[in-house]
Amino acid sequence: MSVGSNTPGALLKLIREGTATTRAELVDLTGLARSTVSQRVDSLLADRLLVEAGEAPSSGGRPPTLLEFNRNAGVVLAADLGATHSRLAVSNLAAEPQGSVYGELAIAEGPEAVLSWVEMEFARLLDEAGKSEIDLMGVGVGLPGPVEFATGRAVSPPIMPGWDGYDVLGRLEDRLGVPVLVDNDVNIMALGEWWAMKSPVQDFMYVKIGTGIGSGLILGGHLHRGGDGAAGDIGHIQVSDTAVICRCGNPGCLEASSGGAALARGLRDKGYDTEVTRDVVELVRAGNADAIQAVSDAGRRIGAVLATIVNILNPSEIVIGGDLAAAGAELLARIREVVYRRSTALSTRELTIRPSELGDDAGITGAAAMAIEHALSPSEINKLARVE
Amino acid sequence: MSVGSNTPGALLKLIREGTATTRAELVDLTGLARSTVSQRVDSLLADRLLVEAGEAPSSGGRPPTLLEFNRNAGVVLAADLGATHSRLAVSNLAAEPQGSVYGELAIAEGPEAVLSWVEMEFARLLDEAGKSEIDLMGVGVGLPGPVEFATGRAVSPPIMPGWDGYDVLGRLEDRLGVPVLVDNDVNIMALGEWWAMKSPVQDFMYVKIGTGIGSGLILGGHLHRGGDGAAGDIGHIQVSDTAVICRCGNPGCLEASSGGAALARGLRDKGYDTEVTRDVVELVRAGNADAIQAVSDAGRRIGAVLATIVNILNPSEIVIGGDLAAAGAELLARIREVVYRRSTALSTRELTIRPSELGDDAGITGAAAMAIEHALSPSEINKLARVE
Repeated sequence: MSVGSNTPGALLKLIREGTATTRAELVDLTGLARSTVSQRVDSLLADRLLVEAGEAPSSGGRPPTLLEFNRNAGVVLAADLGATHSRLAVSNLAAEPQGSVYGELAIAEGPEAVLSWVEMEFARLLDEAGKSEIDLMGVGVGLPGPVEFATGRAVSPPIMPGWDGYDVLGRLEDRLGVPVLVDNDVNIMALGEWWAMKSPVQDFMYVKIGTGIGSGLILGGHLHRGGDGAAGDIGHIQVSDTAVICRCGNPGCLEASSGGAALARGLRDKGYDTEVTRDVVELVRAGNADAIQAVSDAGRRIGAVLATIVNILNPSEIVIGGDLAAAGAELLARIREVVYRRSTALSTRELTIRPSELGDDAGITGAAAMAIEHALSPSEINKLARVE
Repeated sequence: MSVGSNTPGALLKLIREGTATTRAELVDLTGLARSTVSQRVDSLLADRLLVEAGEAPSSGGRPPTLLEFNRNAGVVLAADLGATHSRLAVSNLAAEPQGSVYGELAIAEGPEAVLSWVEMEFARLLDEAGKSEIDLMGVGVGLPGPVEFATGRAVSPPIMPGWDGYDVLGRLEDRLGVPVLVDNDVNIMALGEWWAMKSPVQDFMYVKIGTGIGSGLILGGHLHRGGDGAAGDIGHIQVSDTAVICRCGNPGCLEASSGGAALARGLRDKGYDTEVTRDVVELVRAGNADAIQAVSDAGRRIGAVLATIVNILNPSEIVIGGDLAAAGAELLARIREVVYRRSTALSTRELTIRPSELGDDAGITGAAAMAIEHALSPSEINKLARVE
C-alpha cells in the first residue's frame, strides 16, 4: 500500500482541487523530480483522468500545458432508495446525471425484490448511456434507515422489514465488480447539497423535514457519521413541550410532534383530510389557517433544537429540505427566528440558514458524489495506476 | 511550500504514530527510494527528533535498526490561564512536565500584567529545566473565554476585562520567537484528556462543569472549533425548565440553572454559606441533603443536554471534568441515567461516560499537546529540515 503524496492519485487530487494546473506547479507543490511528475501525469493522461486543455500564459519560454480533470473519464451509478419510491442515475465524475430512472417501489418489499430491480435498472441505465462496466468506477446507495457505513448493512431500520443486517454492499459489489458505498438517505442528501455549493463551507448541516425529521453533518469538510454511524439523528431528540409517544417508543421526540406525519395526524384530528405530508403542504399553500399554525409551531420546535446544535457545533450553513420544507416561507421563517434568538451571538455571526437548492435531487447527487469521492481518492487511483 | 509525504516531516509522523519502526518499513509505506529515506532519516537523527533504539528481529539478513521518536528532542511552554489562578509548565515532546508553576493571578488584571508575569515565569521555567530558547519548539496558551483561534485573540470575553481583541499570539511570538497557539480553556482541556487516552477514540467530548459549563469536541480525530471558533458552548443552550436570566442576558441557559455559581447561589438562598463551587462540593461531601439534591437536579439537566448531543454527534466517549465534577458519584450517576434513557439505543451502544482522568492537569497537558502537535506537524518539521 502506498500512502505517499508522491503518487498519481495525489497528483490528480491537486489538479481536481485546482491547487495545481500545470506539470511545473505539480513539481513545485510536491518536491518530486520533473521526470517523476511527467511520468505520473502520462499515466493519468493514458487513463483519460486528465486531459491537456490548451496553454497557460507563458512566463518567458515555451508556454506550459494546462492540465484538466476529465469529468467524462468514467461513470458511477447512484441509487436513492426511499420508503415508497426510488431514484437511480448514471452520472459522470462531476455527479452530472447522464440518465435517470424514477420507480414507485416500496422499500418494504424487501432487499431481494428491491435490489433485483436496482440491478436491472442499473444495467439498462449504463446501456442507454452508451457505457459499459469498463467505464463504471463505483456505486453509491442511500437507504431510508440507519446504516453501518463500514459494512454497508442496514441496522434495525424501522420502516424496512427484511433489511435488518442485509449485506447491501456485498451483494452489489459481487454483481457489479466495483466499490460500493452505502449510507443513510439524509447523509447522502447532506453530501449532495454540500457538493453542489460553489464555495463549500467546512461546517455544514442539512436538515430533512418530511414524514420524519433527520439531519446530516459535514464537519471539518468531512461527513460526520459518529462512533456507531448514528450521528445526525435529530428526530428523536426529546423536546419538552410534548408528551406524545414516538414510533421509536420514547415520549416527546421532536419528530413525534413536528414531523410531517405528526402534523397530518394533528390536522386529521381537526377534521381535515390529511393523509401524508404533502396534504399538509397543500393546505398551507391554500392559505388554511390551521395548517399554517401547525407548520409554524413545528418550525419553532425544530428551531429550538437547531439553536442547541448551533451552540454546540457552530456550523457556517444550515440547509432545510424535505417534503415539509416545500410548505414555503413560514417554516423557514420560524426556524430562523428561533435559531437567531436562542443561539449565542458569536455562533450565528456568519451563519446562513437557507432552503435546499437541489430539492428531490439532493439524494441522488449525494449518492453519486459519495461514489466519485471514493473512486477518485488517491488510494483508489493508485490501485488503478498499479503503483507498487 | 512542500505538501508531499515524501518529506522528513511525513516520515517522522509515521514513526511517531507507530506506523513504521524501521527504514525498510518507511520505504514500503512511502514508495520512496531507499537512499531518499536514509537521507531523510539521517536529517531527523541529526536534529535528534529520531534516535536509534536497538535492533528489530531479523527476517534473515542483518537485523534492521529500530527508529524511535525522541520525546526529549525539545521542549514546549504551556500556559493554562484561569479566572483567578493559572498554571504554567515547560514540557517535553510527550507533554510530560519538566517543571511547573502555579500562580494566583486574576485574569481581570489585564493582558499587560498577566502576560508579563507569564513571560517572566516562562523564562525561569526554561532556565530551571536547563533549557534555552534553542530547545523551545512552541508555546500553547489557554484563555478563560472565547478565542478566535486563527488569530490568537480573545473575542468579547465576559470575564476578561481589557483582553477583547488583544493579540496574545502576536505578543508571545514576538517575545519568544517560536509558533504560539492560543485557544479557549475548555478546548485545551478536551485536547489534554484526549491526548492522555491510551487508545484515543475518533469522536470525543469533554464537559467542564465548574462555575460555568462548557465543552470541547474532538470529531473525526480533530478538535472541532466551528465556523467562528464558537463550537462546544453548551452552557448557553436554553433548557426549558427554568426562566432564570443568565449572565449572558438570555433566559434559561443551562449554566444559569446548573453551573457551580448557580448552585452556590441557590444554596445561599436557603441559608447556606456557599460562596463558590468548591463550597457546594464540600457540602455534598459532608452529606448535606439540600446540596446533594441541587447537584442531582443539575446532573439531570446537564444529562438532558448531553442526550441531545449524543443523538446529534454519536461520540464514543464523554469525559466529565471541572470543579463541580469533584462532588463525586451523584452528578455523574444522574448524567448517565438521563443520557442512557433519552438517547437512541444505537447512539449509546458503545458510549462511555467517565470522570476526568487528569483533573486540574487537563488544561496544561492540552496546552502543551497543542503546541507539540503543531511543532511536530510535517510542515513545521520540513521548515526545520529546510526542505525546499
